[in-house]
Amino acid sequence: MPRISQRASAIFESPFRKYLPLAADAKARGVDVIHLNIGQPDFRMPEIDFSNLDFKDYIPYGHAEGEAALREAWCAYNRRFDIEIDPENLLITTGASEGILFALMAVADVGGEVIVPEPFYANYNGFAQMAGLVIKPIFSSITEGFAIPVKEEFEQAIGPRTKAILLSNPNNPSGKVYSRETLEDLASLARRHELFLIVDEAYSEFLYEGFDFFSALRLEDVDENVIVVDSVSKRFNGCGIRVGAIASRNEEIIEHIARFGRLRLSPPMLGQKIALAALSLDRDYHQPVVKEFASRRDLLLSRLSQLPDVIFHAPEGAFYMLVRLPIKDSEHFCAWLLTDFQYQGKTVMLSPGTGFYATLQKGTDEVRIAYILGKERLSSAMDCLEKALQVYPGLKKTVSPAASTQP
Amino acid sequence: MPRISQRASAIFESPFRKYLPLAADAKARGVDVIHLNIGQPDFRMPEIDFSNLDFKDYIPYGHAEGEAALREAWCAYNRRFDIEIDPENLLITTGASEGILFALMAVADVGGEVIVPEPFYANYNGFAQMAGLVIKPIFSSITEGFAIPVKEEFEQAIGPRTKAILLSNPNNPSGKVYSRETLEDLASLARRHELFLIVDEAYSEFLYEGFDFFSALRLEDVDENVIVVDSVSKRFNGCGIRVGAIASRNEEIIEHIARFGRLRLSPPMLGQKIALAALSLDRDYHQPVVKEFASRRDLLLSRLSQLPDVIFHAPEGAFYMLVRLPIKDSEHFCAWLLTDFQYQGKTVMLSPGTGFYATLQKGTDEVRIAYILGKERLSSAMDCLEKALQVYPGLKKTVSPAASTQP
Repeated sequence: MPRISQRASAIFESPFRKYLPLAADAKARGVDVIHLNIGQPDFRMPEIDFSNLDFKDYIPYGHAEGEAALREAWCAYNRRFDIEIDPENLLITTGASEGILFALMAVADVGGEVIVPEPFYANYNGFAQMAGLVIKPIFSSITEGFAIPVKEEFEQAIGPRTKAILLSNPNNPSGKVYSRETLEDLASLARRHELFLIVDEAYSEFLYEGFDFFSALRLEDVDENVIVVDSVSKRFNGCGIRVGAIASRNEEIIEHIARFGRLRLSPPMLGQKIALAALSLDRDYHQPVVKEFASRRDLLLSRLSQLPDVIFHAPEGAFYMLVRLPIKDSEHFCAWLLTDFQYQGKTVMLSPGTGFYATLQKGTDEVRIAYILGKERLSSAMDCLEKALQVYPGLKKTVSPAASTQP
Repeated sequence: MPRISQRASAIFESPFRKYLPLAADAKARGVDVIHLNIGQPDFRMPEIDFSNLDFKDYIPYGHAEGEAALREAWCAYNRRFDIEIDPENLLITTGASEGILFALMAVADVGGEVIVPEPFYANYNGFAQMAGLVIKPIFSSITEGFAIPVKEEFEQAIGPRTKAILLSNPNNPSGKVYSRETLEDLASLARRHELFLIVDEAYSEFLYEGFDFFSALRLEDVDENVIVVDSVSKRFNGCGIRVGAIASRNEEIIEHIARFGRLRLSPPMLGQKIALAALSLDRDYHQPVVKEFASRRDLLLSRLSQLPDVIFHAPEGAFYMLVRLPIKDSEHFCAWLLTDFQYQGKTVMLSPGTGFYATLQKGTDEVRIAYILGKERLSSAMDCLEKALQVYPGLKKTVSPAASTQP
């Protein structure tokens, strides 16, 4: 029997997948499972006339680099964020996911290292494994509001095999928004050590009061180092259209990423049509969406602050938060919520924190909440969490007063 | 300045891309360029009501493995080819391209070898480079009708690093259709040497009279070895929807390919809707299409057989043919057609044969013709080719009578 490759057998499997059958079983028992485990909000897309896709009977390959009109529209849209980038420096990808994989494969060969502040988007692990790279995590702590560690910690982590720093801004899962100063510090590191700085800006549209988004494409004197990955999926709640972008003023890297793209011929054409329509709309789409997310966030903050021994940092952007609970094993807790718990016929599905850390033993007492449902559902979910923490058998023994690092 | 990876800088760049600016220049000079260089036919898709995509205002992530209804429809469709495969053994991919990349990454680690009968689809080179694999070509000759070499040649090429045999059936670029016996020979090799047998069946729908398609999924006693890659793009002329499939009864490999898929979250949802509609249609769609392709093929055969020193093998399937011309350098010839030649205001764009061989110096006197345009255009293209071969300065000196290996 032929054997599969090591890279395939080693591939990171998202821990939450183990819970899908448990959730199905709970539903089969009649339990109402409130899904706060995935990043797919319940908002409508902008109103787009799907009947007017202008493919009447023929859907050809598009340009490997993406359709010219979409690349231009994306660049024009970027000006709203004070980003000046030329269409030839921005390629359309099949979702931001493809952009991450292409970027990793273009910046490092097998055995190369990428520094990633943790917690980080769990699938970075898998993409790094596909590309044969090693993620070197730099720990950022919930108790310090996920502030990016000082330069010295990065300097220590940078070795001869280090090729890039990768992060998402705003951060999934922490909701942290990195300041201009933080990004400038990273840029100077990247410049000094000749590293790429890959920033996943998929959530740039989702920012709460008091926080500004500063794109890595606005950094000065690091044009050769900066690669930005972007997405229409999150921006317009069109997760299934699979359209993202990758941008860099480093022409060599863009040309070589384009070569990866040419192998797969073209990004999805129907999705690109929709993305073009969405990016050409007024920005008004996001104001009510962000307002609603803010009010959901505030509901969570209010409920969580009433729970003993719960630590959290108020999200500054995106629609996720990591919460430290007085539990010993978040994977067990998330499973237990589905297998052994219900409150008034309901339970809540969360993501265990462990999936967002590369360092062992980190995240074992944290869960990620994606506040992608309306306040009524969120409120029920918080009822469940509150009750669960009263009866869960795997609680930590020590009990201290409630704490938070709300801004 | 940070350096790009070796795998990126080494990536195969399709030779025809160099010619795109030349074609643009020719058009700017008023020359009518007849494009027979790409595999995108001019047929209409099946009639599908695009206004009824049933995404009114929300396009969510789908299942990473593809939508259940589409997987079932694909399996049902496969029964038309006497293929029995369960939906859990068939995953939807973002085009056949993604299927090829996932398969290569799942069957071998960096440094692994894959045996590929040449000529082969040029992008296999690039996918192998992305995956860090080495293609070991097995030469099949135009003068022997691209018959797959005898077992002994494979045995010689198989070494300790060999992990798989990869081929397309029908073959792009040769139009060869491999018989059941040939596939059984390959299967026994795969079994004996514990190799995967990856067959790209994207063109299975396009077969000319006298030739039958035998899917690798019908091979017996090699369920653990066989991986089939398939596509809706070619099948229904929906190249831009980016929907393919990968199937294997080896549950371990399917599960691990699914893990790659989960990283990129889901295949494009709109394309999947269209694919589902197309696969649910009657098969009638293909009869007139194949009939038209056959008549285009016959036109080419008739014209080519009148040219001196031209060798070809009549395509048995797909819509490509490789043609050996009395030229010294096919890359130069294909460029020259665009830069220095025109006949009655027209010229033809072809793909140089070199891109389809891994062995150096193979294909230097061959071009690929994709007969994807109507007979009037094809006829004009043949006029151009005939004239070009009379005046091209890079002709071979020796002249022999016209020859062919038509069946």
